Amino acid sequence: MKNIVFLIICLFCLFSYGQTKSEIEERLSNIYDFALTESKSYNWLDHLSNDIGGRLSGSLNAERAVLWAKEELKGLDLDSVWLQPVMVPKWVRGTYEYANIESSPGNTINVNICALGGSIATPSSGIRANVIEVKSFEELAELGKEKIKGKIVFFNRPMQANLISTFQAYSGCVNQRYNGAEMAAKYGAAAVLVRSMNLRLDDYPHTGVMSYGNLPIKRRIPAAAISTNDAQLLSSMIALNPKLRFFLKQNCKNYPDVKSYNVIGEIKGSENPEKIILVGGHLDSWDLGDGAHDDGAGVVQSMEVLNIFKSLKFRPKNTLRVVLFMNEENGGRGAAAYAKRTEKLKEEHVLAVESDAGGFSPRGFSFDCNDDYFNKILTWKDYFEPYLIHYFKKGGSAADVAPLKNDKTVLAGLRPDSQRYFDHHHSEMDTFDAINKRELELGGATMAALVYLTDQFGFE
Amino acid sequence: MKNIVFLIICLFCLFSYGQTKSEIEERLSNIYDFALTESKSYNWLDHLSNDIGGRLSGSLNAERAVLWAKEELKGLDLDSVWLQPVMVPKWVRGTYEYANIESSPGNTINVNICALGGSIATPSSGIRANVIEVKSFEELAELGKEKIKGKIVFFNRPMQANLISTFQAYSGCVNQRYNGAEMAAKYGAAAVLVRSMNLRLDDYPHTGVMSYGNLPIKRRIPAAAISTNDAQLLSSMIALNPKLRFFLKQNCKNYPDVKSYNVIGEIKGSENPEKIILVGGHLDSWDLGDGAHDDGAGVVQSMEVLNIFKSLKFRPKNTLRVVLFMNEENGGRGAAAYAKRTEKLKEEHVLAVESDAGGFSPRGFSFDCNDDYFNKILTWKDYFEPYLIHYFKKGGSAADVAPLKNDKTVLAGLRPDSQRYFDHHHSEMDTFDAINKRELELGGATMAALVYLTDQFGFE
Repeated sequence: MKNIVFLIICLFCLFSYGQTKSEIEERLSNIYDFALTESKSYNWLDHLSNDIGGRLSGSLNAERAVLWAKEELKGLDLDSVWLQPVMVPKWVRGTYEYANIESSPGNTINVNICALGGSIATPSSGIRANVIEVKSFEELAELGKEKIKGKIVFFNRPMQANLISTFQAYSGCVNQRYNGAEMAAKYGAAAVLVRSMNLRLDDYPHTGVMSYGNLPIKRRIPAAAISTNDAQLLSSMIALNPKLRFFLKQNCKNYPDVKSYNVIGEIKGSENPEKIILVGGHLDSWDLGDGAHDDGAGVVQSMEVLNIFKSLKFRPKNTLRVVLFMNEENGGRGAAAYAKRTEKLKEEHVLAVESDAGGFSPRGFSFDCNDDYFNKILTWKDYFEPYLIHYFKKGGSAADVAPLKNDKTVLAGLRPDSQRYFDHHHSEMDTFDAINKRELELGGATMAALVYLTDQFGFE
Repeated sequence: MKNIVFLIICLFCLFSYGQTKSEIEERLSNIYDFALTESKSYNWLDHLSNDIGGRLSGSLNAERAVLWAKEELKGLDLDSVWLQPVMVPKWVRGTYEYANIESSPGNTINVNICALGGSIATPSSGIRANVIEVKSFEELAELGKEKIKGKIVFFNRPMQANLISTFQAYSGCVNQRYNGAEMAAKYGAAAVLVRSMNLRLDDYPHTGVMSYGNLPIKRRIPAAAISTNDAQLLSSMIALNPKLRFFLKQNCKNYPDVKSYNVIGEIKGSENPEKIILVGGHLDSWDLGDGAHDDGAGVVQSMEVLNIFKSLKFRPKNTLRVVLFMNEENGGRGAAAYAKRTEKLKEEHVLAVESDAGGFSPRGFSFDCNDDYFNKILTWKDYFEPYLIHYFKKGGSAADVAPLKNDKTVLAGLRPDSQRYFDHHHSEMDTFDAINKRELELGGATMAALVYLTDQFGFE
């Protein structure tokens, strides 16, 4: 009798939820086991970082990465793999930048700078000028044209160290890098130097995209990042001698747009092939490092989600699609093209989750979705508990999936531990040796787990 | 009227809990702010790691570390700072070890080994013998004396990669290192090689303590760890040629015990000076690296807890004591001496929390205490949530505080993210450059927060 009751309960569970709780737990355990013992992601990232290397949009390396990713996805025996063409900006750094602080004529100290992505070059003889240090655009406005004209504006607002989320600290500073040149040029500055977006004091300049806004070409000025150590040095030297001069020389260049591609692969859904669950990262990176954390990690973790489903023979009910976006770093053209295609084809995305915050120990996800869907997700928290995944918050997703926003789609970003991220971000410190294999694998498994639960239960 | 009701509620909160919830939240915010902006811990660890270095019990460096820690604690203007004498074992590695695999006479490949702590030396001409690979003591027993006698026993059970806690994976393997020589010697083995306790495949051998148990001196055999890459190599070469020979040479030595010290400092409690809240780490380390993670991090985080209280002018109700234990790695003599002193003086410890799991991003604590106290701690979880501290579990504390166990004391261990720990643990990879400043600081702040809550609310 007891057995019959038990059987009835089991059947009830099976019909009402598809699977029992313990079956779901077992599936998640299979996912994490596989990721930690048989994942391809670490070897993939080794190749992408060490054999291909930095892959700025429009570069030869970016094209090599496209071809490599397409072949690897084909090797997973997906239902389809294709390239989505997209025109991308092409900016080239040229020879490495050179800069020094001239405390008195002939008395110079070399410092480490790098051109910001999108910046124009200096004249070939460089620029030498006095420096004016500011911490904000308000300070710039107060100083006004008279005090700024002909000088190098030095934006030196540091990332706020007491914020627990380093991304929040980044958000509080990055306008200096993105808009600094545009703002300073309006007051007649000769060039712009920006303190690197890095919480650590070290010698590495960190690049990143900048914009001249609507500034006419002839009014544009060169923009560079300076390492945090050298920003400290420059600031203290200015305090001693406000008349010191700074020299910088860079010969970066913007070229016409070139053709590139998003790389896309998918496993067709067995029940709702028209509904899409998207996992992704961006294939392009900055040129100074090899882009292992930003965003090689996200690329291989996303590919790994499909590898896990194929290897464990989990046939998804919905279509499971990986999108490796091109040009997140300096244009977002891949994301825009994908969103446009989605709208045109009227494709329905159930979930779009991106990993673009480094390959560190995963802590959870941030979500951009309606409250009902979010509350549904919160009911899954217990499934993640054995894997120390605890962070489930509303508050943004990630750059490449954000354009897919609509009320029917859950947008999400994987949230790894953020403490080390900006030590590496956009600098020559972003290299494969800073990747821990297990942390990388746990990130892929955590994405696969969210995808699995979404596929089984949906958000309705 | 509303104001009066509000005032009454406030007063009620104040009298019943001492402080309102938002006051407590502000204190914790002060603690984390201070740790991330003004902490001494990173500079302390730089000195302890880079200027002092590896500090095995009984070494000159260990004594330098004792003197340094005492002076630094004095510099914090504590109510008292003292040394507790303790006799510790003295084991010296001597010159670096040498080993090779001889696939056929004269045909050798060098491999990386290191003597295990406490091991005897090989004869000065080394030991060359056939190798027998096993994964467990059961396998050893099945093989028996006949097949083992005169051979080198190679314990090659890897750490289990699919466990989320790397400490659990360590527990599942470390008996090979600790008891391997004793077990193999009983069957007449010539020496013991143990696969390094490391989840990564790399070239660094990881040392650690071993024991001969009750084995008479003349039956003891040398024991060494081999790097994981070389363990893989040796295993595959044995599969091809079971007759291959292995050569190892090490000249480590055990000396008579020498005198050393626990370093202790305290701030007297303003209300219950007889009740003690203990924070600690261990001052000794292995000799191969500089002991930055194991356990320089725990030492400076514990010191930092008192620095935070002094700097923020938090006068604790209970006595706040830091204990920097000597000889955790190969004897636990400091911990034993401290526990004995505690018993003799009938001192009452409310909480004893140790950081000895690396200086990585803190995730929470493990506790060893009764259920009532643990349930009280769980009511504090929300205070930690803004700092992403989520792990509060029963299940052990840490080696140096464990001997203080009694029903009135809460024992706890700080639990940082464990994924990278065994890449460094007990090897030349345990160096200061593997420390992230913010992660280290967050660990100290998290200990300080637990101490603060314990001091305010207690467990009763």
